[in-house]
Amino acid sequence: MTRVAELSTPALVVVAPSLAWNLDAMSATLPGARLRPHVKAHKCTSLAALQLARGHAGFTCATPSEVVGMARAGLGEDLLLANQCVDNARLRAMADTAARVTVAIDSAETIDAAAANGIREVLIDVNVGMPRCGCRPDDARRLADDARSRGLTVRGVMGYEGHVVGLADRAERVEKTDAAMARLVAAHDAVGGDVVSAGGTGTFDINTAATEIQAGSYALMDTAYGSLGLPFRPALRIAATVVHVSAKYAVADCGLKALGMDHGNPTIDGAEVWFCSDEHVSFAPATPVGVGDRVFVQPAHVDPTIAYHAWMHLADDEGMDAGIVERWPVDLRGWDF
Amino acid sequence: MTRVAELSTPALVVVAPSLAWNLDAMSATLPGARLRPHVKAHKCTSLAALQLARGHAGFTCATPSEVVGMARAGLGEDLLLANQCVDNARLRAMADTAARVTVAIDSAETIDAAAANGIREVLIDVNVGMPRCGCRPDDARRLADDARSRGLTVRGVMGYEGHVVGLADRAERVEKTDAAMARLVAAHDAVGGDVVSAGGTGTFDINTAATEIQAGSYALMDTAYGSLGLPFRPALRIAATVVHVSAKYAVADCGLKALGMDHGNPTIDGAEVWFCSDEHVSFAPATPVGVGDRVFVQPAHVDPTIAYHAWMHLADDEGMDAGIVERWPVDLRGWDF
Repeated sequence: MTRVAELSTPALVVVAPSLAWNLDAMSATLPGARLRPHVKAHKCTSLAALQLARGHAGFTCATPSEVVGMARAGLGEDLLLANQCVDNARLRAMADTAARVTVAIDSAETIDAAAANGIREVLIDVNVGMPRCGCRPDDARRLADDARSRGLTVRGVMGYEGHVVGLADRAERVEKTDAAMARLVAAHDAVGGDVVSAGGTGTFDINTAATEIQAGSYALMDTAYGSLGLPFRPALRIAATVVHVSAKYAVADCGLKALGMDHGNPTIDGAEVWFCSDEHVSFAPATPVGVGDRVFVQPAHVDPTIAYHAWMHLADDEGMDAGIVERWPVDLRGWDF
Repeated sequence: MTRVAELSTPALVVVAPSLAWNLDAMSATLPGARLRPHVKAHKCTSLAALQLARGHAGFTCATPSEVVGMARAGLGEDLLLANQCVDNARLRAMADTAARVTVAIDSAETIDAAAANGIREVLIDVNVGMPRCGCRPDDARRLADDARSRGLTVRGVMGYEGHVVGLADRAERVEKTDAAMARLVAAHDAVGGDVVSAGGTGTFDINTAATEIQAGSYALMDTAYGSLGLPFRPALRIAATVVHVSAKYAVADCGLKALGMDHGNPTIDGAEVWFCSDEHVSFAPATPVGVGDRVFVQPAHVDPTIAYHAWMHLADDEGMDAGIVERWPVDLRGWDF
């Protein structure tokens, strides 16, 4: 069996026992339909299949290509595009899959586009405090009426408290989640339907107003979420090779094209990361390293990190001696299908 | 002909006249072998072919997959891996191409790996002031002797003044380039060979010590380099679709998975960018936009932006009405081959 230390680098490595721990911990708190795992975090149908095996048959997607990819992989029992789309060809492609597809709508234009391209079910996307998509709560009823008049089934509402999920203080997360969900519940009262979809990894056990939580990062985690004290383990790292050693620092082959950088630099255990270049990370190791040694790099933000990689390597344990038991394609990348 | 405004989004768009301007401007200053274009910036053999057509037969690469991809595309007259590699399989793959391949070495380990895997030619990589790869200048002779004793041909030296290329003040760039190149020239005096390879877009007309300049960003440019007053035009942007409009802001479908973020937020002409999410940019437009409208997003850093995309769309002019004349695969992405 190939060991982690034998992978060509940079290589995404998923620690299987930690992944299983995370999936089990989440399923214990949010069983079955209480969780609608977000595939944007991992973009990998093989990993999604493990979430399905734990009883979560509905999935959240961020792009039409994720929806179509999940449908083609046979994971299409209930797919939510939690995003606005006015691309006729992509809406039609989603509608033409064998999957049950629900899309978010928040405007006359998104209703028109969905109805015109064969989409049958929608959620009213409600702005719950973050300046991104979603209608004003008091517009939800009108939009739902419009959607129904166009023949669309309105399953309920969604709203993402993205301004809350990363707050370090749990009490503040609770308070602000409650405020956000008050807006969503008011919209739901006006709209009706069975679904109140919201939440993320940072509010998975705080958001009790939602009927289903759209968490994704919990499966693999990252250093940003790692600081919140959540019951999930870091399961993703990048194996890198030391390619240069100087007196005060070393350089490994994991750089800007292997790492989402919007949350800042990655971390390396027992080292101080100095900076990243396109294909390098320069760091000061606490204990000496040699050229050819392997190091693990922990990304600050998992989602845009994974989107750079074609493969995930599933390791049977922590450490460089662990064996690679599977290699999963990151098959939901990009926007084409 | 498909117009830019008809592309599914997010979509990389290259403005052909601006690209041609940039390629011509650079070739006028650095004709023929004076320029060794760096393919890491664009990762596209179709674009590299235009650089070859202007007389630059030698190319710089950052990864073995770029070297192998260039070789397979018939662009292998003189390929430099300006990076350290100790991966036996990848070194062997480069050596087994039909291309002339030269690799950078800066340690006993990198010499051993090159010699053991069929590499025939090397440059001594010298640290000229940035804490990344490269030996100390006074180690260059010893490394060159070691390499020659292993049967490797030492073509000369390289050193990248990456700590200088982005400095806003030209006088400071001149002063610090001179200091950096003094180190490289001293090493070259000790090593010998025909090649002194260095430089980048920010020092293309400043670095006169190098026999060849490794510029890459000049072809497409980005907003970071755009602030330096260089004679190159922004030729790359991302077409995005407005998917949501609120009273004070709008949202388009170009986010963290479409943008290298290490240099900060992208820009949108006539708008204030607020923040990016995985698939969104929230921005305050100066003039009203509607859902379905297209906007151009300018990335802050071109290299890690392009690495997220499978395709570049070559447009015959500025603007959303321009026609798409070619679609180029970004075929040098990733690390596999």
